[in-house]
Amino acid sequence: MEDRSEQLSRPGVEALDAILGQPFGVLDDGLVRVVDYMGDDAAVVQAARVSYGAGTKKTSDDRGLIRYLLRHRHTTPFEMCSLKLHVRVPMDAWRQWIRHRTASVNETSTRYSLAIDAAQRTAPQQWRIQAVNNKQGSDGWVDEDLGRKLSDQEADLQDKIRCVYNERLEQGVAREQARKDLPLCTYTEAYWKIDLHNLLHFLALRMDSHAQKEIRDYATVIGEEIVARWVPLTWEAFQDYRFKARYYSRIEHEILAATTRGNLEQARTTAAQAGWLRVTKSGALARHRERGEFELKLETLGLPIPWAETGEL
Amino acid sequence: MEDRSEQLSRPGVEALDAILGQPFGVLDDGLVRVVDYMGDDAAVVQAARVSYGAGTKKTSDDRGLIRYLLRHRHTTPFEMCSLKLHVRVPMDAWRQWIRHRTASVNETSTRYSLAIDAAQRTAPQQWRIQAVNNKQGSDGWVDEDLGRKLSDQEADLQDKIRCVYNERLEQGVAREQARKDLPLCTYTEAYWKIDLHNLLHFLALRMDSHAQKEIRDYATVIGEEIVARWVPLTWEAFQDYRFKARYYSRIEHEILAATTRGNLEQARTTAAQAGWLRVTKSGALARHRERGEFELKLETLGLPIPWAETGEL
Amino acid sequence: MEDRSEQLSRPGVEALDAILGQPFGVLDDGLVRVVDYMGDDAAVVQAARVSYGAGTKKTSDDRGLIRYLLRHRHTTPFEMCSLKLHVRVPMDAWRQWIRHRTASVNETSTRYSLAIDAAQRTAPQQWRIQAVNNKQGSDGWVDEDLGRKLSDQEADLQDKIRCVYNERLEQGVAREQARKDLPLCTYTEAYWKIDLHNLLHFLALRMDSHAQKEIRDYATVIGEEIVARWVPLTWEAFQDYRFKARYYSRIEHEILAATTRGNLEQARTTAAQAGWLRVTKSGALARHRERGEFELKLETLGLPIPWAETGEL
Amino acid sequence: MEDRSEQLSRPGVEALDAILGQPFGVLDDGLVRVVDYMGDDAAVVQAARVSYGAGTKKTSDDRGLIRYLLRHRHTTPFEMCSLKLHVRVPMDAWRQWIRHRTASVNETSTRYSLAIDAAQRTAPQQWRIQAVNNKQGSDGWVDEDLGRKLSDQEADLQDKIRCVYNERLEQGVAREQARKDLPLCTYTEAYWKIDLHNLLHFLALRMDSHAQKEIRDYATVIGEEIVARWVPLTWEAFQDYRFKARYYSRIEHEILAATTRGNLEQARTTAAQAGWLRVTKSGALARHRERGEFELKLETLGLPIPWAETGEL
Repeated sequence: MEDRSEQLSRPGVEALDAILGQPFGVLDDGLVRVVDYMGDDAAVVQAARVSYGAGTKKTSDDRGLIRYLLRHRHTTPFEMCSLKLHVRVPMDAWRQWIRHRTASVNETSTRYSLAIDAAQRTAPQQWRIQAVNNKQGSDGWVDEDLGRKLSDQEADLQDKIRCVYNERLEQGVAREQARKDLPLCTYTEAYWKIDLHNLLHFLALRMDSHAQKEIRDYATVIGEEIVARWVPLTWEAFQDYRFKARYYSRIEHEILAATTRGNLEQARTTAAQAGWLRVTKSGALARHRERGEFELKLETLGLPIPWAETGEL
Repeated sequence: MEDRSEQLSRPGVEALDAILGQPFGVLDDGLVRVVDYMGDDAAVVQAARVSYGAGTKKTSDDRGLIRYLLRHRHTTPFEMCSLKLHVRVPMDAWRQWIRHRTASVNETSTRYSLAIDAAQRTAPQQWRIQAVNNKQGSDGWVDEDLGRKLSDQEADLQDKIRCVYNERLEQGVAREQARKDLPLCTYTEAYWKIDLHNLLHFLALRMDSHAQKEIRDYATVIGEEIVARWVPLTWEAFQDYRFKARYYSRIEHEILAATTRGNLEQARTTAAQAGWLRVTKSGALARHRERGEFELKLETLGLPIPWAETGEL
Repeated sequence: MEDRSEQLSRPGVEALDAILGQPFGVLDDGLVRVVDYMGDDAAVVQAARVSYGAGTKKTSDDRGLIRYLLRHRHTTPFEMCSLKLHVRVPMDAWRQWIRHRTASVNETSTRYSLAIDAAQRTAPQQWRIQAVNNKQGSDGWVDEDLGRKLSDQEADLQDKIRCVYNERLEQGVAREQARKDLPLCTYTEAYWKIDLHNLLHFLALRMDSHAQKEIRDYATVIGEEIVARWVPLTWEAFQDYRFKARYYSRIEHEILAATTRGNLEQARTTAAQAGWLRVTKSGALARHRERGEFELKLETLGLPIPWAETGEL
Repeated sequence: MEDRSEQLSRPGVEALDAILGQPFGVLDDGLVRVVDYMGDDAAVVQAARVSYGAGTKKTSDDRGLIRYLLRHRHTTPFEMCSLKLHVRVPMDAWRQWIRHRTASVNETSTRYSLAIDAAQRTAPQQWRIQAVNNKQGSDGWVDEDLGRKLSDQEADLQDKIRCVYNERLEQGVAREQARKDLPLCTYTEAYWKIDLHNLLHFLALRMDSHAQKEIRDYATVIGEEIVARWVPLTWEAFQDYRFKARYYSRIEHEILAATTRGNLEQARTTAAQAGWLRVTKSGALARHRERGEFELKLETLGLPIPWAETGEL
């Protein structure tokens, strides 16, 4: 470890200090801003080097070490950094957010205080259509005429609900009970503190295309505007080794290796053993989600689909 | 530890097996029921005895050991037991519930599925009045005429909201977005699994009189109907050493000791040093919440209030 | 929440900055020093006020609010602060330390590096005698002649073990295996990061008189030298409401109330119902640990022991 | 969710019940055995289906759903199962084991009890050689003559240490202090309880070829003898989607795609931009760990190394 008698000063990050307290707007009335932080890329390196001893200082630079850590899933050094945000977010997105249990949270209480007088409003062009083949997702937007109608209806409804809330309070009903019919998309505010390892995990899940658009918007701002400034080396390595990395299952990799070696028969055998090549009554290949996803990967690699060839015979 | 060659069978609790899967109703349409569990009072004892060695088996019985553990805050043996519940609960109570980060949760998704077609309804006699001196609490009930009016208004509002939700779905809006204006008190369902140590912590906070009535109702059912059957020795000890225990701060205890020894002047001095005896312009003691709470404790003990005597001079 | 457009600067604590990086010696060759931190007393207050809204800023000062939080076990605001230490500690004390699972840790690896060439040495006057009535504790010191003999024996043994370790390495044995017979008290080093709430929990357990002396020495330095400088208001409140607070179980409090009211018969009845007053064959009260502890509390309060009076008849 | 009025019985797993309490030997004197468990493959499925609603019961079978969950990193349903083991393990392996913070642990105390009178012994053919290019690993075994010498030396040393331990105890030294020079490989025993999600994470790290052999032996027994019996569908999916899955970083995947498309120049350009193709003074490619690992992957796939060709010109 470093010389024991040295006088330290706290590590700081100029690029992050420059935006401390500045709100980044999200959705129609939400925000994210940095309130405090602890550590930087160098703190990750410092923690990792505890294990290696002083000798390694010479041989590997900081960037290389951070990339090594993320590549080999050595996650504990990233816990040495923490970020504290002030967020303003609709409660229905917050319900997803709060499922990340490793963060510290202090949220505005609607028992102590009045609920924030704002609920998320949807612009006419922002209404999304239910996806057909992804039960949990959306796919495209409704046309603008319908969008306008939905937005008007939304405004009316939210006004009506707020009205009832206010009436209840005027008549002396307890705040903790009066709030019960407020819309799920009512804004709430919170301090949210999390260490960098767990933040990266949050970002990997919530910046993903399968995450709901609302929370994805928040995650993207946190990642691109804040984490990228705070720990640039970690952010770059996160992109390369985690967010944009590709996974191949054991089965996928065996089929891939047979295909790259030109042994399509072996590829078909492996796929068949994995149950990928069941045939419907009509003689066509039955739908198989995992096989479908793998076919897209083969396409990306410019490789032939082993069972497609068979079909062509 | 026990003989290594023994064949074990899984511990079970007859009294809990008898109610497995049976719903306990809470609120107007909520429920709690046990789905699975692991361990029992004996499992707590078994884990505690790892530390002590076999010899202690003779000297302390199970009940005594469990009481000892809770008395001395040896919490890890209670982690050896787990409980898995199926709950149906309004989302606004669930928002408080989910803040306990040590549980495992799987909740119905309103992205994948339709939202449950039920929101909590309040009966006319159940509308609570905002407490004056407890900003987060309620105190008594509104009169029944007003209650009826509020309940009617609530029913109308909830119907209206559900109507808008259904219309959005019919027009093809994605479920994940259509739900955004549902009331906070819409019911949700979840599996909730937690170990006994963390469950006791949940119960201590949520059965407390300061907890909101809705979640307190759930906590009380979990405690009295489920935990009491599952681990009766632990439940009894929890009552005695935790839920009904009394705490005296350093200052309180010094004043108490001076008072029980009859040294009221010493009691007053300590209170004054702690800033408890500030006087308003009118010469009366200024309000001081901590002193007020302590005066209630003295009353419970039948002891004189040291500064009240002074006032009487 | 605060004005959204303000430019923030990171909170710092001068008294802590002044000792950043400076080692506090513990045991013969151990140390603790602050490497980084996040937040201060004001950050606790800021997080707590999220719940209350701006209005409360006027009515309660920071000290009062922090004391209120600790008194009422509102623990989440204390999670907003974090401390990062560099520690050097014998592995047998570290084994206890690491049981606190809420901290982040990076420890020197004896797979990557040579084990630290230092094991804790015991001075002749530091050998402790096994306590008789506390199976896990010690009580007093062995006489110095014996102490000298034990210390010499310790030095010989440690030298011998280090010798074998070095021989194994010279003969090419892998570091991860060569270390297997090093003494438990070999020093290790680590970065240890924990939030303030969990740190207070650590201190409450490890500064306690029942904790082993070695880890108690570390905890005391962390509390008195570091936490006291870092968050002085929290430290003071921790002493008053937690570390020096007194707990009375339901049974104890019922007996206490009967005693302070002068109703010793009631006190005896309650004690008997609780099983405290079993009598041995010889007619004397059987030993009962819980009763014994309570008698000490009564003594502190200058109150009579209800069953002692009986005994005197 | 399922019908609310049903009477449930606890899920059990015959294949695991059959080995409950039976020790699996590990190392020379260690063991692992199942003491209790909660849940099974069906419990994972049940928790996952909460999100999907009843309709999905027909369309996807249990095996398919479990594979889907592991493939898409939906981890929470696996938390619904828990396993409780009794383990006997050398303290130096336990030091690594205990770093998994999500488990519940009760370990034999050497403050309350005598230390277990057994330390791990190494057979002559089991002494491992320090790896050269993996600083934390070992590589092969020392020759048997040296092995015998090392084993004899180990036995002598351990006997000597135990002797000193016993002498200290005889002279009245406190157990908590007498133990300080026991070898790191002294056996300890514990109950260890963990949920299935976190257990899989433990197994992925500790069954890995980079884990130290001692803990790898334990992890392998837990995986192959216990988890495989307990949750066979999850175990199979874990192998396919996690333990034997392959990861390609963004860079690796770009180079791979260029290579499979036959565009080796593009592959070289990408590699050069990533800093993989630095040349030493002698004109050869400089060592680059990441490139080296990727070359092995290309070999597995039977693909040419784009920069090797260049070198051959």
